[in-house]
Amino acid sequence: MRNLKLLLAYDGTDFRGWQVQPRSPTIQGELSSAIGRVTGENVLPQGSGRTDAGVHALAQVATFQTESPIPTANLVIALNDILPSTIRVLEATEMPPCFHARKSAQAKTYRYRIYRGSICPPFLARYVWHYPYPLDFEALESAASTIEGERDFTSFASVDREKEARSSPASETEKTDVEKTNIRVVFSSTWRRAGDELVYEVKGNGFLHHMVRNLVGTYVLIAKGTLQPEDMLKVVAAKDRSAAGATAPASGLYLVDVEYAFR
Amino acid sequence: MRNLKLLLAYDGTDFRGWQVQPRSPTIQGELSSAIGRVTGENVLPQGSGRTDAGVHALAQVATFQTESPIPTANLVIALNDILPSTIRVLEATEMPPCFHARKSAQAKTYRYRIYRGSICPPFLARYVWHYPYPLDFEALESAASTIEGERDFTSFASVDREKEARSSPASETEKTDVEKTNIRVVFSSTWRRAGDELVYEVKGNGFLHHMVRNLVGTYVLIAKGTLQPEDMLKVVAAKDRSAAGATAPASGLYLVDVEYAFR
Repeated sequence: MRNLKLLLAYDGTDFRGWQVQPRSPTIQGELSSAIGRVTGENVLPQGSGRTDAGVHALAQVATFQTESPIPTANLVIALNDILPSTIRVLEATEMPPCFHARKSAQAKTYRYRIYRGSICPPFLARYVWHYPYPLDFEALESAASTIEGERDFTSFASVDREKEARSSPASETEKTDVEKTNIRVVFSSTWRRAGDELVYEVKGNGFLHHMVRNLVGTYVLIAKGTLQPEDMLKVVAAKDRSAAGATAPASGLYLVDVEYAFR
Repeated sequence: MRNLKLLLAYDGTDFRGWQVQPRSPTIQGELSSAIGRVTGENVLPQGSGRTDAGVHALAQVATFQTESPIPTANLVIALNDILPSTIRVLEATEMPPCFHARKSAQAKTYRYRIYRGSICPPFLARYVWHYPYPLDFEALESAASTIEGERDFTSFASVDREKEARSSPASETEKTDVEKTNIRVVFSSTWRRAGDELVYEVKGNGFLHHMVRNLVGTYVLIAKGTLQPEDMLKVVAAKDRSAAGATAPASGLYLVDVEYAFR
């Protein structure tokens, strides 16, 4: 049995997120049916994590097992022929049997784009959060790195129980040690200006459901002056979702990198 | 009665083109209903020309008459509040009564983007024609300007009679002198490389239905070696649609500028 790793990019706009659902287009569903057509096997590829409806990926990773002898270069071409043009397989790699897209992941990086111009170009509408109101960039900068380190991020976790259940692994025993608690390590957390945009980038050993969008919503409260930069750690300490800001829109969020010890 | 000019940008992906249609989302239809909500008047804005389903605009121009006293700056904000985020009003300007978006137009510029990389990024899928097969850029360059000048472009006009009827003005008397024949003046016609793309730009006093996409389809025949650069003028001379190449996909086409003598 071969264990194959796929590197994927997708525009999440037209999909109901990563996870397969009956009667709704999802990334996992489209990928599963494309792999089925190429290999003749019924396969459910496992992603490094689940992205929500409307969330994009520059480099999502998925693994699946197959008996098919198809060379990886041909697999890339065959899958891209079948998949919608808003999902692309960038690379396919043969991996050792123990490699797993989710369980082997050591770090993930997400990016969030806020468009600041007064009129958002129609070609960016699907790819940013349009927020033209006053924001204090210096406040963002000074609050950015305060969340770095190992912390309980309960305040930034979705409290939607049903969704939470949907987005967690099938069974408790399927969970990795990191996934069993709300404690995560944030390796870096930065805000930068890029043209007409403010861009947030956060790298961690894992993220709770809605965590990045809830972090962004809270940073925006700081940039509006509703909260002070030093309040970020108070929000963390509260371990209470209601202490944090609203969930920022999905359209601005990108999974940009998943890192593994495997080369 | 005020005569207002709107400068518009839109992502054509989700629309059935410019022209209002029952039960289908169109740019003109969305704009008409947004103007109706702002002014309380039943208005059908006139565009500089009709763009087809999936075709984009960076600077479409439309005019409409209104009794509403709303200041132009407020009109821009109010319309953008109502319109889908993939249609944006960039500017509204008060014009003399004789100004008409279509009849006063003196030149239009279209751009066409061909993506050449082997895998088209999912975020470009709606905005380019993905054509990864061999193309001879030098052939494109040497054929590009040959069509400049005043010519009968019948070979590049849509032969779909029904569509033609739909896309022409309501009555013969509504047509401008230019619109009464298939003769148009092409002021400039150029191909250039831009990163992983080949970009065609053509400026003329007007364009027949499908003309730019049919020009691109024919240039691609030249770049593939099916035709020679010097065949471009033979195709023009044939005055026969079947002499030209296939219609290039709508997704790569942009209306980028409409020029007027009015300042």
